[in-house]
Amino acid sequence: MKSKIITAEWILSSAEYPPIKQGAIVIEGDKIIDISSQEEILPKYPNYTIINLGNKLIFPGLVNAHTHVPMSVLRGIAEDLPLMTWLTKYIFPVEAHFKREWVYWGTKLSLIEMVKSGITLFCDMYLFEPEVIRATEEVGLKALLGEGLFDFPSPGYGPLEKGLQLTEELLQVFERHPKIRIAVSPHTLYTCSPETVKKCLKLVEKYSAPLHIHLAENSEEIKEIQKRYGKRPVELLNELGGLSSHLLAAHCVKLNVREIELFAKRGAKIAHCPESNLKLGSGIAPLPEFLKAGIIVGLGTDGPASNNDLDIFSEMKTAALLHKGLREDPTVVTAKEVFAMATEWGAKALFFNDTGKLLPGYQADLSALDLSQLSLQPDYNPLALVVYSAKAGLVSDVMVDGEFIMRNYQITTVREDYVRERIHEIKEEILLILRKNFTSIS
Amino acid sequence: MKSKIITAEWILSSAEYPPIKQGAIVIEGDKIIDISSQEEILPKYPNYTIINLGNKLIFPGLVNAHTHVPMSVLRGIAEDLPLMTWLTKYIFPVEAHFKREWVYWGTKLSLIEMVKSGITLFCDMYLFEPEVIRATEEVGLKALLGEGLFDFPSPGYGPLEKGLQLTEELLQVFERHPKIRIAVSPHTLYTCSPETVKKCLKLVEKYSAPLHIHLAENSEEIKEIQKRYGKRPVELLNELGGLSSHLLAAHCVKLNVREIELFAKRGAKIAHCPESNLKLGSGIAPLPEFLKAGIIVGLGTDGPASNNDLDIFSEMKTAALLHKGLREDPTVVTAKEVFAMATEWGAKALFFNDTGKLLPGYQADLSALDLSQLSLQPDYNPLALVVYSAKAGLVSDVMVDGEFIMRNYQITTVREDYVRERIHEIKEEILLILRKNFTSIS
Repeated sequence: MKSKIITAEWILSSAEYPPIKQGAIVIEGDKIIDISSQEEILPKYPNYTIINLGNKLIFPGLVNAHTHVPMSVLRGIAEDLPLMTWLTKYIFPVEAHFKREWVYWGTKLSLIEMVKSGITLFCDMYLFEPEVIRATEEVGLKALLGEGLFDFPSPGYGPLEKGLQLTEELLQVFERHPKIRIAVSPHTLYTCSPETVKKCLKLVEKYSAPLHIHLAENSEEIKEIQKRYGKRPVELLNELGGLSSHLLAAHCVKLNVREIELFAKRGAKIAHCPESNLKLGSGIAPLPEFLKAGIIVGLGTDGPASNNDLDIFSEMKTAALLHKGLREDPTVVTAKEVFAMATEWGAKALFFNDTGKLLPGYQADLSALDLSQLSLQPDYNPLALVVYSAKAGLVSDVMVDGEFIMRNYQITTVREDYVRERIHEIKEEILLILRKNFTSIS
Repeated sequence: MKSKIITAEWILSSAEYPPIKQGAIVIEGDKIIDISSQEEILPKYPNYTIINLGNKLIFPGLVNAHTHVPMSVLRGIAEDLPLMTWLTKYIFPVEAHFKREWVYWGTKLSLIEMVKSGITLFCDMYLFEPEVIRATEEVGLKALLGEGLFDFPSPGYGPLEKGLQLTEELLQVFERHPKIRIAVSPHTLYTCSPETVKKCLKLVEKYSAPLHIHLAENSEEIKEIQKRYGKRPVELLNELGGLSSHLLAAHCVKLNVREIELFAKRGAKIAHCPESNLKLGSGIAPLPEFLKAGIIVGLGTDGPASNNDLDIFSEMKTAALLHKGLREDPTVVTAKEVFAMATEWGAKALFFNDTGKLLPGYQADLSALDLSQLSLQPDYNPLALVVYSAKAGLVSDVMVDGEFIMRNYQITTVREDYVRERIHEIKEEILLILRKNFTSIS
């Protein structure tokens, strides 16, 4: 068992505890066994290897609670358009021809970007999800992953039955995997019939698996479900038996008071994606009410085609600032709350209960901000630096399960230059498809 | 006269023109004389030195239209507090003891941060502004600067008359300075009486100088001015003769329809600071209405104590996203509009009419994003990359008046390590003052 001590100028163990000046974390294998000041730790563990990160701020690895990582290959193809134009003229035509290979390389691109912004755990739903799994294992992140399921045939698996079969196979294969877990992932209530959702819920029950779905994202969805079924999406999902502690619902922009109460009562989780919700014109989720009700809320970037980055620092800041401004009250949604959302609550929302804090017994998943960067000075308040001042490019080191996957700004697990070359080629292939659809970049 | 050609993978000359693939800019001295593709430019100027930036995206240097750069020494001292607590328990006690030296070093800290986020021009108002000027000249940025004027004595200059005198001296000294211009800068209408504003306006008229003031920032200001004078701030400033094309008004969160029309009619400019307005709970300025009315609007970070960074990329994204979400319409406030706000309109708002675009006749003020960074790939849409995906740490090169002030990620004009050391010492001095006021970091 490899044992080591990681030291740094500051360590932020979680939102609850004050930051530790001149801190030290003791790691045995993949687990944290002790954390305190260097003064206390170093004499206590005399034979451990010391890795001194220097003038850094160590914090729990960030959690991206909802995204579609392969969509990085579509970053920037169309901007500022009405949602239906964006989908029907750009996203859908390309997705209809989406290749297995694009998923693999797009995922690698996104994962490198996420590591560089301090993320150690994420949740994804897309096409060809086995390729996402393969890339995730290579880069070394943790993830809750699921093949997006639809009533109509998918380029990823063909007819729905094959998708359910794929999901079940993945649930079996990854049942005890240390880093990858599988979510049953019906896309939405307007692309999956009640019958499909029921089939999904059977898998959820059989494998005690998470259910990941887009829910109550915008007014159009509410209207469409009302029209089809005479009820609101949350009501429908509840009647189908989906509103349980297994649920991770992305967006939830349009939850009403009763629905918020129901989420809290059932222990259902929410992936809050403030920047995507703004950019697509979906609206602003009632985050202060989620928090007041005690719902477990994580922060997600959503796909990089509608954001256009995979930066949880930025989501923390946006989540904290938005409601202060809207309600004209600077005390609403605190830095501590959004930090918890980006770490421990995010981990819980993704059903990883052993990560998200740097405390004994937790997995050694952590990131380090480089405090020698002038934009992170002075260091009065390390937590405020993480939430309000940090940028994706200022993370120097990232560790997952006790192993560095980035060290001194260098990804250690995969080669960036290969990814760069392949993305360049894939871009040309995608431009060709858009041209065939008589569409130019907007 | 030094002549050179700068080449790069992409050049974005302004919001109006499509980006140039494999672009080249021809610079003579401090001015751009030509811009086009390398194919066209290179044979036309055979004897010019070529500086190839490689896989970069060159764009006009960004403009930070409103800030208080020395306040970086206070970054993070207090967060998520009611405005009056924040001011009276933290900001004011420290500002009462603010030292000339802190201004110099705080400015250097902020300017290095701004250069690294691609900013070439900014507007500042604070105490001891001559120290801001000194640091700005050393780092090599352009700026519109002014000593903040108050009715009460300032640690910067003593009694008001001395402040007006200082302003007039600066106006004379910097009348023909290539990079530094001076603004008459009464702080607000609640810290400056109508008499003071009138004295300021005399200087504005005498020197045809800009007037920089905080205006209609929040509801408290509106109430306070209503209470004192029976009218709204814009009404009061208008009656005093301040609402002219010389005006650069920061914030303007609480402008009503009539006031927006008046701003447009008079050619008054606005520095829109969306993140600070959110964070301090001031509210959300009606940006779409400003743009519709044809007002010249720049983007500002406000002081780094209330933001907590000096990042115009982030302000662009926030400005674009906010109203899409609020109005549930993704077509509102486009990437092109916020890019114009961060470049040419910002420059106009600061009365620098010869910068903000990369076109013949304009000054050679430009920045370059490093496209080899995976978070800036693929490059379908360079403008969208700048607005929605770029981060402060991904700028590699910055040029002002034809000279690099950052080259290949290295600031060329000042040494960062000195700044780091002094900021560390200043932090300890400030902590001592807070402790004397029985206040701990919040």
